[in-house]
Amino acid sequence: MTHEIAVIPGDGIGQEVTPAAVEVLEAIDAVDFDFVEGAAGDAVKAETGEALPQATRDLAADADATLFGAAGETAADVILPLRQVVGSFANVRPARSYPGLDAVQPDTDIVFIRENTEGVYKGIESEISEGVTTCTRVITEDASEKIAEYGFSYAKGNGYDDVTIAHKANVMRTTDGLFLDTASAVGEDRDASYDTALMDALAMHLVMNPQDYGVVICPNLAGDMLSDLAAGLVGGLGLLPSANIGEENALFEPVHGSAPDIAGEGVANPSAMILSAAMLLDHLGYDEQGDAVRSAVESVLDSGPRTPDLGGDASTEDVTAAVIDEL
Amino acid sequence: MTHEIAVIPGDGIGQEVTPAAVEVLEAIDAVDFDFVEGAAGDAVKAETGEALPQATRDLAADADATLFGAAGETAADVILPLRQVVGSFANVRPARSYPGLDAVQPDTDIVFIRENTEGVYKGIESEISEGVTTCTRVITEDASEKIAEYGFSYAKGNGYDDVTIAHKANVMRTTDGLFLDTASAVGEDRDASYDTALMDALAMHLVMNPQDYGVVICPNLAGDMLSDLAAGLVGGLGLLPSANIGEENALFEPVHGSAPDIAGEGVANPSAMILSAAMLLDHLGYDEQGDAVRSAVESVLDSGPRTPDLGGDASTEDVTAAVIDEL
Ligand SMILES: CC(C)[C@H](C(=O)O)[C@@H](O)C(=O)O
Ligand SMILES: CC(C)[C@H](C(=O)O)[C@@H](O)C(=O)O
Repeated sequence: MTHEIAVIPGDGIGQEVTPAAVEVLEAIDAVDFDFVEGAAGDAVKAETGEALPQATRDLAADADATLFGAAGETAADVILPLRQVVGSFANVRPARSYPGLDAVQPDTDIVFIRENTEGVYKGIESEISEGVTTCTRVITEDASEKIAEYGFSYAKGNGYDDVTIAHKANVMRTTDGLFLDTASAVGEDRDASYDTALMDALAMHLVMNPQDYGVVICPNLAGDMLSDLAAGLVGGLGLLPSANIGEENALFEPVHGSAPDIAGEGVANPSAMILSAAMLLDHLGYDEQGDAVRSAVESVLDSGPRTPDLGGDASTEDVTAAVIDEL
Repeated sequence: MTHEIAVIPGDGIGQEVTPAAVEVLEAIDAVDFDFVEGAAGDAVKAETGEALPQATRDLAADADATLFGAAGETAADVILPLRQVVGSFANVRPARSYPGLDAVQPDTDIVFIRENTEGVYKGIESEISEGVTTCTRVITEDASEKIAEYGFSYAKGNGYDDVTIAHKANVMRTTDGLFLDTASAVGEDRDASYDTALMDALAMHLVMNPQDYGVVICPNLAGDMLSDLAAGLVGGLGLLPSANIGEENALFEPVHGSAPDIAGEGVANPSAMILSAAMLLDHLGYDEQGDAVRSAVESVLDSGPRTPDLGGDASTEDVTAAVIDEL
């Protein structure tokens, strides 16, 4: 069986790390892929006026899965519609520290399960009178239940004992109240153990005691911030993969952006993108191969060549070759 | 001149740390205070049905300034209206690490200037149909301008060179777009140097490189999370004071809550509350006395008795006495 993968490198270092991930996937003999490339981002917008051309949307919609690199100024115009195109409801963001790498908190292993369809990301905004603007945040029972079901299943399936439901229901009583009640009910129904945490207090505790957390289920914007916070704990965005999971389709992307400051130099860290490809393997049912890619990345991070962001002077290509060697 | 200070200890350790701060203020010979106590919080709600009785509101409204301790379950019902009663538009939250104390990031000295009147805190929520809820976030040009003016003045007046405007305008284009544009215009008008930062990326950078930041001007909820994140960097909420500043009135409170787990034992760390009292002194024009209280707290943190949260076994009273001794 051949899997059709849409590949959207985008801008900046997206153009460098995406081919690296494709190379790694191609090196996996047990799985056949057919890669089809699509354009998106600042460059294609400058050319065509559109950051996300219809052809690229169609590609992602029809593929078995999509690999996305990064976009520059147009990041929101590209990634938010792409997350919709693939029908993703869960944004899965593991933040792990690796032995041997400098980290603010070297004992971190947390997976954020971020709701991926609503909250302030609905984009309902208006200027209701001169100088007075509103943004309507939407929280539904359906989406809250779906993300909680996903989060509790993920925790169980991946051996995490601690589940935390993040919220700010003391202020957003109706919306986050619904999120909290719905997600808690899912935990009760499953007889699962879980905690709930106000997201401000959680931000503090994550910084001080990340080892106390496993899976964190969060509303959309809270997940955006908390997962970046955790990136800071483990040594930066260069290591964080993510998966946007839908019923029948999915998109995989590093948490980092297009990094215009280092783009074009061939020294971008491909780890986050390769780890995103490992999540793609898991998603298609190749858990063993996904694990193999993760182990290979880990062993390269531990004792292989390192890109400048990790204090080394290796190139993207050096690291990629080392990962493939380890496979 | 005698200053009338409303004192609202509230619940839990609020009952222990608030008297400590009052003792410290009483020890300052140069200033005359008249302290009037008001009730608020879980206990008074259990008795009277109201977490914030009208008499307490009136007390805070009429006083020259208010000292508030903490409230338990009713925290939001107490502190949100109190912030309105005193007409506060700026929530000032300094997060500093102290030499000699364990901190995740020992080189942190950041002041969050949090907008204190709008955003999701307007409380405009509804269930628009079964299982579908909304929260209307409000951002106005007036409030954004006011907080930015305050933030830039604060930075200048307190010797901070780095000013950062936090926002999420790539997603909330209209509301945070207005916040960002308005705050940036204030910076331009003043010929001040400043940066802008997406609040997710900022969360990561604050964790990794807090020393790069000075004053951070933020929308209400972002300020809530980012300041708690910074509390984690400097060793916890026990050290963070805050000021809610209005045109003619103000309220001072520790960032921590009522800590029911240690309440009643007499071992709560009074530092955050005493540092809040120092901000009260600044606010009334007694900068010299405010500085003296801060120095006293610092020197006790450095080499005086410590409460259990900082690894010591001193009581609230021991620490308070030591601070007064240093004055
Ligand atoms: C680029 C932006 C729209 C996006 C988001 O807010 O989701 C990014 O921050 C992310 O976390 O993937
Ligand atoms: C208690 C709660 C309403 C409050 C807030 O969200 O402002 C608290 O978290 C704070 O930061 O003072």
